[in-house]
Amino acid sequence: MSSSSPSLAPVLAAPAPTSLATHYQAVRTQSVALVQPLLPEDTVVQPTLDVSPPKWHLAHTTWFWETFLLKNYLPGYEVFHPEYAFLFNSYYNSLGSRVNRADRGTLSRPPLADVYRYRTYVDEHMATLLARLAELPPAATELLELGLHHEQQHQELLATDIKYILSTNPLAPGYLTDEQLAMSNEKSEPAANSLPTAAWLPVPGGIYAVGHQQEGFSFDNELPVHEVLVAPFELQNRLVTNGDFLRFIEAGGYRQFQFWLGEGWDLVNRESWTAPLYWSQNADGQWLRYGPTGLAPLNLAAPVSHISFYEADAYAQWAGARLPTEAEWEVAARHFEATPQGGNWLETGHFDPQPLAANADPTQCHQLLGDCWEWTYSAYHPYPGYQRAAGALGEYNGKFMLNQLVLRGGSCATPESHIRLTYRNFFHADKRWQFTGLRLAR
Amino acid sequence: MSSSSPSLAPVLAAPAPTSLATHYQAVRTQSVALVQPLLPEDTVVQPTLDVSPPKWHLAHTTWFWETFLLKNYLPGYEVFHPEYAFLFNSYYNSLGSRVNRADRGTLSRPPLADVYRYRTYVDEHMATLLARLAELPPAATELLELGLHHEQQHQELLATDIKYILSTNPLAPGYLTDEQLAMSNEKSEPAANSLPTAAWLPVPGGIYAVGHQQEGFSFDNELPVHEVLVAPFELQNRLVTNGDFLRFIEAGGYRQFQFWLGEGWDLVNRESWTAPLYWSQNADGQWLRYGPTGLAPLNLAAPVSHISFYEADAYAQWAGARLPTEAEWEVAARHFEATPQGGNWLETGHFDPQPLAANADPTQCHQLLGDCWEWTYSAYHPYPGYQRAAGALGEYNGKFMLNQLVLRGGSCATPESHIRLTYRNFFHADKRWQFTGLRLAR
Amino acid sequence: MSSSSPSLAPVLAAPAPTSLATHYQAVRTQSVALVQPLLPEDTVVQPTLDVSPPKWHLAHTTWFWETFLLKNYLPGYEVFHPEYAFLFNSYYNSLGSRVNRADRGTLSRPPLADVYRYRTYVDEHMATLLARLAELPPAATELLELGLHHEQQHQELLATDIKYILSTNPLAPGYLTDEQLAMSNEKSEPAANSLPTAAWLPVPGGIYAVGHQQEGFSFDNELPVHEVLVAPFELQNRLVTNGDFLRFIEAGGYRQFQFWLGEGWDLVNRESWTAPLYWSQNADGQWLRYGPTGLAPLNLAAPVSHISFYEADAYAQWAGARLPTEAEWEVAARHFEATPQGGNWLETGHFDPQPLAANADPTQCHQLLGDCWEWTYSAYHPYPGYQRAAGALGEYNGKFMLNQLVLRGGSCATPESHIRLTYRNFFHADKRWQFTGLRLAR
Amino acid sequence: MSSSSPSLAPVLAAPAPTSLATHYQAVRTQSVALVQPLLPEDTVVQPTLDVSPPKWHLAHTTWFWETFLLKNYLPGYEVFHPEYAFLFNSYYNSLGSRVNRADRGTLSRPPLADVYRYRTYVDEHMATLLARLAELPPAATELLELGLHHEQQHQELLATDIKYILSTNPLAPGYLTDEQLAMSNEKSEPAANSLPTAAWLPVPGGIYAVGHQQEGFSFDNELPVHEVLVAPFELQNRLVTNGDFLRFIEAGGYRQFQFWLGEGWDLVNRESWTAPLYWSQNADGQWLRYGPTGLAPLNLAAPVSHISFYEADAYAQWAGARLPTEAEWEVAARHFEATPQGGNWLETGHFDPQPLAANADPTQCHQLLGDCWEWTYSAYHPYPGYQRAAGALGEYNGKFMLNQLVLRGGSCATPESHIRLTYRNFFHADKRWQFTGLRLAR
Repeated sequence: MSSSSPSLAPVLAAPAPTSLATHYQAVRTQSVALVQPLLPEDTVVQPTLDVSPPKWHLAHTTWFWETFLLKNYLPGYEVFHPEYAFLFNSYYNSLGSRVNRADRGTLSRPPLADVYRYRTYVDEHMATLLARLAELPPAATELLELGLHHEQQHQELLATDIKYILSTNPLAPGYLTDEQLAMSNEKSEPAANSLPTAAWLPVPGGIYAVGHQQEGFSFDNELPVHEVLVAPFELQNRLVTNGDFLRFIEAGGYRQFQFWLGEGWDLVNRESWTAPLYWSQNADGQWLRYGPTGLAPLNLAAPVSHISFYEADAYAQWAGARLPTEAEWEVAARHFEATPQGGNWLETGHFDPQPLAANADPTQCHQLLGDCWEWTYSAYHPYPGYQRAAGALGEYNGKFMLNQLVLRGGSCATPESHIRLTYRNFFHADKRWQFTGLRLAR
Repeated sequence: MSSSSPSLAPVLAAPAPTSLATHYQAVRTQSVALVQPLLPEDTVVQPTLDVSPPKWHLAHTTWFWETFLLKNYLPGYEVFHPEYAFLFNSYYNSLGSRVNRADRGTLSRPPLADVYRYRTYVDEHMATLLARLAELPPAATELLELGLHHEQQHQELLATDIKYILSTNPLAPGYLTDEQLAMSNEKSEPAANSLPTAAWLPVPGGIYAVGHQQEGFSFDNELPVHEVLVAPFELQNRLVTNGDFLRFIEAGGYRQFQFWLGEGWDLVNRESWTAPLYWSQNADGQWLRYGPTGLAPLNLAAPVSHISFYEADAYAQWAGARLPTEAEWEVAARHFEATPQGGNWLETGHFDPQPLAANADPTQCHQLLGDCWEWTYSAYHPYPGYQRAAGALGEYNGKFMLNQLVLRGGSCATPESHIRLTYRNFFHADKRWQFTGLRLAR
Repeated sequence: MSSSSPSLAPVLAAPAPTSLATHYQAVRTQSVALVQPLLPEDTVVQPTLDVSPPKWHLAHTTWFWETFLLKNYLPGYEVFHPEYAFLFNSYYNSLGSRVNRADRGTLSRPPLADVYRYRTYVDEHMATLLARLAELPPAATELLELGLHHEQQHQELLATDIKYILSTNPLAPGYLTDEQLAMSNEKSEPAANSLPTAAWLPVPGGIYAVGHQQEGFSFDNELPVHEVLVAPFELQNRLVTNGDFLRFIEAGGYRQFQFWLGEGWDLVNRESWTAPLYWSQNADGQWLRYGPTGLAPLNLAAPVSHISFYEADAYAQWAGARLPTEAEWEVAARHFEATPQGGNWLETGHFDPQPLAANADPTQCHQLLGDCWEWTYSAYHPYPGYQRAAGALGEYNGKFMLNQLVLRGGSCATPESHIRLTYRNFFHADKRWQFTGLRLAR
Repeated sequence: MSSSSPSLAPVLAAPAPTSLATHYQAVRTQSVALVQPLLPEDTVVQPTLDVSPPKWHLAHTTWFWETFLLKNYLPGYEVFHPEYAFLFNSYYNSLGSRVNRADRGTLSRPPLADVYRYRTYVDEHMATLLARLAELPPAATELLELGLHHEQQHQELLATDIKYILSTNPLAPGYLTDEQLAMSNEKSEPAANSLPTAAWLPVPGGIYAVGHQQEGFSFDNELPVHEVLVAPFELQNRLVTNGDFLRFIEAGGYRQFQFWLGEGWDLVNRESWTAPLYWSQNADGQWLRYGPTGLAPLNLAAPVSHISFYEADAYAQWAGARLPTEAEWEVAARHFEATPQGGNWLETGHFDPQPLAANADPTQCHQLLGDCWEWTYSAYHPYPGYQRAAGALGEYNGKFMLNQLVLRGGSCATPESHIRLTYRNFFHADKRWQFTGLRLAR
């Protein structure tokens, strides 16, 4: 499907960063690598409001470096193009007006080639800045780390947005060929017989500190560290699988209101949902799922993904269980990290469209945190004592702290150096285009 | 404005219930009393989706008794009309299809007179049932208590819906005349000089039990009792007042994005909000508010009400404070109930359209819990261990536990016997037609 | 006003006007008579944008007299209420701002009783003005005639809006009881065996003058008289009947795109139309129609009504015929008026909810012009040389001359003195709540 | 495909067809030439429902040949791709389901390169078919002519859609560089002093035959020829110019309801229109228009274009004139073709984005029929006796014959061999993205 024989080398190369400059280069390279299997046409479209054009992601992440680093810390820096701030500002009111989000997919210009020129221009100036980093105030280094994590967030969005763009096309093209997929990662999908038996792992109650407590980077929404009281609970050792979820479907789960929250039931009926996003049945009734190489039979042993919070919660209701809170999830993760008992939980290295993540060492992929983001029944609200930063970066996280749910873990599309035990991902309850699944609690 | 000289006697008469039968009669009488100042035409309209026609409230509450008590516990009971279950079921999927909520205001029939006949028919049969209550299983008594609280909830909705219906009319008719208002309650609105100085009241941290712990009725969403860890915090001794809020407006609060959550900022701009609901400025710039007798000058000493969560949160941001969580609120309420220090907090007996509540003894009105529902920054989620009941009543609360915020306290429109320290009221963040205000925390 | 024993006297009394003053009184009385069988609640609601509350019609027609006659020609006249111009102006930009049309059904005030007081106030002052009419300039008499025809237009809208309001109620109440219906008009519905055989009546081609050519009132849109060239054509002697239309339905007419205009086909699918408005099938498959006494079996001999232009056109396509143009219709009407051959055409005195029209002499009802408005395939555009009048009345007709179709004839709901051979009624192609049917041409 | 050095050769080469095969080749080449200055990204987007992606036009026109010619007349023909019928069927219900029109801009695949491969594949097979054309039934030749005119219609849409796509981009890129524009056509824009003085040309009344009467191709909607009676009228010798229209704007034309049809006035206010599409004012108040090379000063001598019917009609009302009917327009065009007096009318060879038309001999461009489509006040209805063809082609024109207005003439974007005196173009009254202007009548 490739237009000009893209090398997959960049997809495969994600060396461990040895320094910030090296890490900068690796992250920037990886963004481009994700887009390389696409055609220019694929980088333009926005089939639904949530999905931004890949070209936009490549430019927006570049604008971030320009706006927060180069303009502030590289004397004499001149912006690449005076209109790009209008075109590629995502949502920062502090930074002025911008293209309406719904119109991102109507903009053919600048073309992909110009966006690459923009990236090169900014990378060259960033190289100059990185060489002088030691001389700059610590805030510059902090912004650099933020920029890297920001770009990694958009790498995950690139993966999910590309998947959506290609999947909604009636031609259902694959992102990779079978050969490319085989090359990209030796780890095969989990076989049914490798699946651990579902089991409940007990976690003792108590007062626990939650939030980012180690060295290193975290987003402001992971702070401050604070104590929570958690009652004893149990968590399953593995994610709910496609096979598990199929039983829910076959039991009429999508047709029985009593398992559903009211807004979820309305949604299921309005949208005529009968299965997770990307699932379909062929004429023989066989279940297929759209994945990296196009349509393929559903792997019953893989964790269910691309479900909304409503579907996760309805499944849990049907199963006589519940979703964990984010505090429970974090407490359990800490608990099992330190105990042999955790082994079971850690065994859940299943994944679905793993090649999207393109990790250099797939054997280490996802060991800790699973292959899907896990919906929790916790609202994305500020931690006690949270304060929005002053200026534009105060808009980064704080203004979204309502009407969304926290997801924990990470997915096959999350860059590995971006995964953290305290990471608070968040989406509205109806969203399905992310790699979202669930783990039962009780 | 009255069509046939309604006596206000029922409005004034709300005797303390001495028994369930007496209480049943008092509650049923009070619903009718609330509608009595209206004309038949006023009872039909639905000016916005949230606001149900008063006629619908009178019928729906009656349908509740018929459906849950009479059909189950009165042998041989025949429903008043076979179509009323379709017309007056609110949201119970368990009980079949029903009129679309958005269409309630398109239905002129049954007319108000028939709804009153329906009420009389059901009350007569309920009298029979109440006389035999001791012979019935305990579940019948539980349903009776639930039905009373259900009807009281709709009394508050009647008050707020009537206010909305009359206020949106270009004629801005009052609900009561000045004379009726004067008769209905001797307590005057707070004078500016009676206003306590705002002060911060400290509450010690610790592990607290929250949830309904006393004897008597509570909704299922107030259970189970469970422990929470609360860090030390401070709460203000009084609600934010109209005068306080006016300073926020005059400081440009509605025009500065940095105080607002993202969805709130979009809403403010989309709806061109510049003040709380029911506020307006006359040609001289004087601030007016729509209240029980129509338009009147804004009382700066009264608590601000009819604000959305977004406005409450933006105010708190502007004031350098925050909204309390629902746990903090409940902990503080218990704390101050038991301490002399609480006196300040308890002094906030301000109110706006108090006559709607029609309490028998206004001197006792609102002493504990304020005059407005107080927005908390807590999502309306199930308490740990919460289980939805089986059957239709499982739909009463549980299916709404997402995307709404908890409000605590009670308002001038809340029947006094309906106010509870553990009561969890809940609305979406954009709603303003309830008596909703805020109290600052830090 | 009472629902239990409505007097039908006013419904029946519509004496032939002997003078303008008498005619004024008769017309004004008839508007009230149409509303008399309703309850106050029925007069408030607006179940769809096109349908105005009956209370609004009663007030708007009164505002018309006040605005165009009393304010201009009765010295010292004081308006009944200063806000009524805002409330009851329909669409005259010349006369200032007004209630949004979509909000008419949200307004409970002024109540029906106040609207009657308004009518009485205006009628009393109109009596004074009518007594002096001879002294006033001729323009006053012209406005008086316009006002009478304006009110008659709203009488037809009252009939169709009331029908819609009652029909959409799940209780499907009748407008009249069977007894009232029997009293109101001796003429029974047509029996199947009374139905004339459909036949084609030829009309010779030629140059014809069209437009209002007689003495007496016409709207400005019926002028100027102008010549048109019409090719020879044939018209059917009777309207398409319910029985005819049922054959179209049973032949799959609503499921075959090839009979439909593109926008009609989209509409049929979007709205899931399978039959005319007010038709339904009971559990036994019997066809019913909602009419003056509620649901009743469909009369196959009656003309089909309550169909959109799209349905009329699709029927004609299916039948291998077409709709006439408005010029053809007018030419044919003049032609058959003057020829014995026309007798067949004139035999179509069928009607459906005839009591709504409340004609004094039902034997003369509709002889000339049929019982349904007949869709023509002519756009409602200005006649050659048409000029909008100056001032507010220039908005009466001219600004609507686009995107609507002309209907000719008249319906059982059209006051008889309002029917004219040159009358140009007009509606958008998708409207069905008027008494609209068709007659085939070829 | 390259953006840097587009060859304009194909744009300039449009040799007069000497045979159908040659004409086929010329038309097909011209479609590609129109897209050549674009980047692949430009060919994907759909910024508004009416505007289809250029890539879609290139594929849909190809699908038309495949579907109507190759599948029917080339034995053994195999379709290029089995899914393309779903992707590129525009609106033919006869030919099955298809992509929702609103989703055309969400489809990145097939990429432009594949669409070109599709075109080549079909052209090669068409060459075979064209070589055998003499042996095929006459219907094949008729379909060939229809296909050529179909593709020419899409060439005009390509021009207008490309203009819209580029204009809505905040970068406002030009379609051509100044140099390319200069090369493409020697004829310069009209100078102000070359503008003929507006004058009224009288046309005598009488019975005229209208409709396609010559040899050669016409669409079915131009038939049957039929007689109309036209009263004497006058038409202006030239189109209304930008300068004329600016006087309307400066006189407050967009702010005074009395010039507007009701639906037009609502639209103007809802969309905040203050000028034709593509007009803007810079900071100095100078009027600019978006054209082939991007933004440029408004040429007051050029005909106003990109106005809706509502704006055309409002201008005419303001000017004390009216729009012609389509019959008047056609009668006048025939009249002036044959009279020296017509010279004035024919002098209006003004044009705006003329390079889009890319005519071989620009000196002959537009002499007869003006540079903008001219709105008439005639509904697009069937001519008397019109019959839709059987089969899919019956959907070509007939199903659109409602709620649209006829435009006559042709525009700078209309291929010259596609312009006909009897041509009935049609659009909804609110559309502005075509080259639409007006000529006054009285």
